[in-house]
Amino acid sequence: MLTDIEIADQAQMLPIEEIAAKVGLKKDQLEQYGPYKAKVTTPIKPVEGKKHKLVLVTAINPTPAGEGKSTVLVGLADAMNQLGHQTTIAMREPSMGPVFGIKGGATGGGYSQVIPMEDINLHFTGDLHALTSANNTLAALIDNYIMRDNELDLDPRRIIWRRVEDVNDRALRNVVTGLGGVMQGIPRETGFDITAASELMAILCLSKDLMDLKRRVGQIVVGYTRAKKPVTVKELGFADAITILLKDAIKPNLVQTLDHTPAFVHGGPFANIAHGCNSVLATQTSLALSDYTVTEAGFGADLGAEKFLDIKRLTLGKTPDAVVVVATIRALKYNGGVALADLKNEDLDALKQGFVNLKRHVQNIQNYGLPVVVAINHFVSDTDAEVQTLADLCAEMGVKAVVADAWAKGGQGTQDLAKTVVELADQPADFKPLYSLDLPIAEKVKAVATKIYGAKDVAFSKKAEKQLKSFTQNGWDGLPVCIAKTQYSFSDDQTALGAPSDFTFHIREFVPKLGAGFIVALSGTMLTMPGLGKTPAAVNMTIDENGVIKGLF
Amino acid sequence: MLTDIEIADQAQMLPIEEIAAKVGLKKDQLEQYGPYKAKVTTPIKPVEGKKHKLVLVTAINPTPAGEGKSTVLVGLADAMNQLGHQTTIAMREPSMGPVFGIKGGATGGGYSQVIPMEDINLHFTGDLHALTSANNTLAALIDNYIMRDNELDLDPRRIIWRRVEDVNDRALRNVVTGLGGVMQGIPRETGFDITAASELMAILCLSKDLMDLKRRVGQIVVGYTRAKKPVTVKELGFADAITILLKDAIKPNLVQTLDHTPAFVHGGPFANIAHGCNSVLATQTSLALSDYTVTEAGFGADLGAEKFLDIKRLTLGKTPDAVVVVATIRALKYNGGVALADLKNEDLDALKQGFVNLKRHVQNIQNYGLPVVVAINHFVSDTDAEVQTLADLCAEMGVKAVVADAWAKGGQGTQDLAKTVVELADQPADFKPLYSLDLPIAEKVKAVATKIYGAKDVAFSKKAEKQLKSFTQNGWDGLPVCIAKTQYSFSDDQTALGAPSDFTFHIREFVPKLGAGFIVALSGTMLTMPGLGKTPAAVNMTIDENGVIKGLF
Repeated sequence: MLTDIEIADQAQMLPIEEIAAKVGLKKDQLEQYGPYKAKVTTPIKPVEGKKHKLVLVTAINPTPAGEGKSTVLVGLADAMNQLGHQTTIAMREPSMGPVFGIKGGATGGGYSQVIPMEDINLHFTGDLHALTSANNTLAALIDNYIMRDNELDLDPRRIIWRRVEDVNDRALRNVVTGLGGVMQGIPRETGFDITAASELMAILCLSKDLMDLKRRVGQIVVGYTRAKKPVTVKELGFADAITILLKDAIKPNLVQTLDHTPAFVHGGPFANIAHGCNSVLATQTSLALSDYTVTEAGFGADLGAEKFLDIKRLTLGKTPDAVVVVATIRALKYNGGVALADLKNEDLDALKQGFVNLKRHVQNIQNYGLPVVVAINHFVSDTDAEVQTLADLCAEMGVKAVVADAWAKGGQGTQDLAKTVVELADQPADFKPLYSLDLPIAEKVKAVATKIYGAKDVAFSKKAEKQLKSFTQNGWDGLPVCIAKTQYSFSDDQTALGAPSDFTFHIREFVPKLGAGFIVALSGTMLTMPGLGKTPAAVNMTIDENGVIKGLF
Repeated sequence: MLTDIEIADQAQMLPIEEIAAKVGLKKDQLEQYGPYKAKVTTPIKPVEGKKHKLVLVTAINPTPAGEGKSTVLVGLADAMNQLGHQTTIAMREPSMGPVFGIKGGATGGGYSQVIPMEDINLHFTGDLHALTSANNTLAALIDNYIMRDNELDLDPRRIIWRRVEDVNDRALRNVVTGLGGVMQGIPRETGFDITAASELMAILCLSKDLMDLKRRVGQIVVGYTRAKKPVTVKELGFADAITILLKDAIKPNLVQTLDHTPAFVHGGPFANIAHGCNSVLATQTSLALSDYTVTEAGFGADLGAEKFLDIKRLTLGKTPDAVVVVATIRALKYNGGVALADLKNEDLDALKQGFVNLKRHVQNIQNYGLPVVVAINHFVSDTDAEVQTLADLCAEMGVKAVVADAWAKGGQGTQDLAKTVVELADQPADFKPLYSLDLPIAEKVKAVATKIYGAKDVAFSKKAEKQLKSFTQNGWDGLPVCIAKTQYSFSDDQTALGAPSDFTFHIREFVPKLGAGFIVALSGTMLTMPGLGKTPAAVNMTIDENGVIKGLF
């Protein structure tokens, strides 16, 4: 059996101009990065006569190995094109840190991949590097500011702007900087996050254009004065310089699938510690040019879809016409209590028990008023009895479940799903928002926790309560909330699988992200910088004299 | 008067394929990064019938504003082409940190620039970002290694691999990482350098091909065991993963000058804290394709030219056919004791006094057996009497001095220099190395300090002396030395202008760079991470809705 990178290496790619031509983009609207990658100059006007339909692909709570959401997304888009429904992809670009850690890449798998996979999984067109350097240039400017005259009296103890890296580096989570004496700055405690969790990443993904990005960068609160007044990037005079560093990164990237479906791969915030959706600009570009756009939102629907519908929707100005919830037999058995090592064995009872996880995700989407279909992402170890059991369980709750074999068969294995998706998307939907923006921050957190997660109530730490009071004083109540939570459970306890209820959801701390336009609520012990495992993927990678790479997933 | 970026913005750029075609490169040998930048697939075979001559541009000790070495280089190459001598440029790519600090960009100036200047000065083709992430991925792997089983017993107190950023961030010079408890790693004192000073940058610049790069990465010593045995990247098993991250960065970048001269702009180590030369691969590619290649080496000839001739030469396998020493009237007056604020006033006495600086640089080049010409980089404030005085002083010592007006007139202002350079380069030269590699490390440092810097002797700190003993035990004596020293003086005291002698040169510490293949000797208080000034350039930058940038130099 071929590995992902071997399949990708054997692919016959089309020149990116040909992919662009499929959606009517001309050469002068492209900035090429080699023959198979390009950035697209925006804005792109909506093409008349196109349907401009949006399909959102999300998932159940995953096992640590992931449930192949990107794989199903790619296979689905290829299948829709094969069936004559003109479809384009809008998805996130991978973070490089996890590629060298445990997770591997994020470009689909098997015969449903976006390519060139090794470029996309590594530096790609430099978007994350531009974000890293913009973020850290701002950090250096701030530390330089407090070392100099510090006219605004920015309090070194109250700086909330952290540095970032696109590396899984736990040793940088908590650091003391500015050591070494008078000329090396002012010592203070701070830390690094992964770039995908940064506010600049969220800003890049939510900005409508370069000037909107500049406005948002200006609104970033970097810290507080000794009198606890928030200090913004605009007040410090750094907004233009930081925007200059992002002038190319804001342009959507165009690549292709193995089957030559155009794919806008742009913006990559994680969904557990950030808002988890690809860029508004990429999604809008795809919508403008196509009958159908297939997009995704990270991890399970409790994180990704919720944030798509409650945050990204606000600037995108468009709700999905259909939602696909990806489930695997293995993850449902995992949610039903089976150990990771035993997931290959048939277990109908565990499947039935774990089904509650899928059920709640589906109901949540239905509560938003959106049409939904379940995609059963097929694994070799799935038995016929298991597949039939799952289909029956779905039928009982009135939702269609379709087997998708995107990994082994590409679009050919995903055509049944494609037909169902097109039917759903072509019917009218009636979207109902989860909460009103007028609610206080705490009520918005409660709305997500009780209605989506199934929590009984929410407990705020003393610190969080104190923060909420100052946020009200600062006039920040009207913003949506972005909850940082484990992807493995509906709750804030990653071992509570299935569909836990009757639990209290804990908020440890808030982080205001005025540039992104939301308030982050940190639950449980969520970390904003991943670590490397005992045997990092890096150890098994090789490259030879022809540049052939092995061990990259 | 137009600013550099205004002149660059008004330029009519040719598509990069046309620039490539001038030197016989075909489209399939290019990877385009937008319409005006490309990476070149190497190796490139030497074209038969070409002269393959190499011209090295270096300078006297500069004022803090710089003496326009890059500007003269670009003007010279344009002039040589205008006169029918087929010429290509091989120069360094800028570091982004200083662009936002005080220095501004590094792409020439006025009517002698490489373009697109704002791209080249910012992210360019991502080389420095690739280096940063490779460097820091290695750092994370090392910290993860010591937190896990640490089979090799790598001593957390003896890790010498530091993290890097392409940002001027003094607060990161000295940091404590790994704080926060058991799961956040092992606390230790470390720091960040600027990417341009990193060993990976030196490796990128000195590697002959990707496999040579992998071999060198494997040889990097990251630290020592408790028994003080050096530990390499290869022993840790990380060499392939780090090489994968540099697979594109190693390819030379092709751009053009305002006058459409092809320019390979690749690799950017600083010359004060690193070896200061562009990549061997870019220089070799340029040499292969051209009659004349004009290249540069950072800051004054005491740093840049010395390192070109004693380090880069070893892998390049080629010595310069002619050397240009760039001097300015203002810098010579500065070296003659005139304050920065008074440099615009005529002062023939100070000029004569400061001439000793130029004289020693010229003699040093002559001692290497190389033909040399002085380029007087013309400033508006230079008086006729000053120019004549300088020309006379040069004539007295038997070296030709030619006025170059590259900034105001481009190649048109540099044709006299071009004629002299071609004459010199077409004559045979007889290169004599400064020292034999067989000498002990201390003797090599002494050779540079006494023969090039004019020092009386060299004092090694206790730490440095101890290090030398262990280096001998490790078998590292055969490597060349790379001295980190202020660019403002021949000595290690930046206030000692002119041509100081009878001074003791102080070595504080050595840093073994086994991958780069040299031993760094840190003199005086040299810092490997610059800081930002009181009013960073970032504060005065703007960008508008059309993407037009101002305040970038």
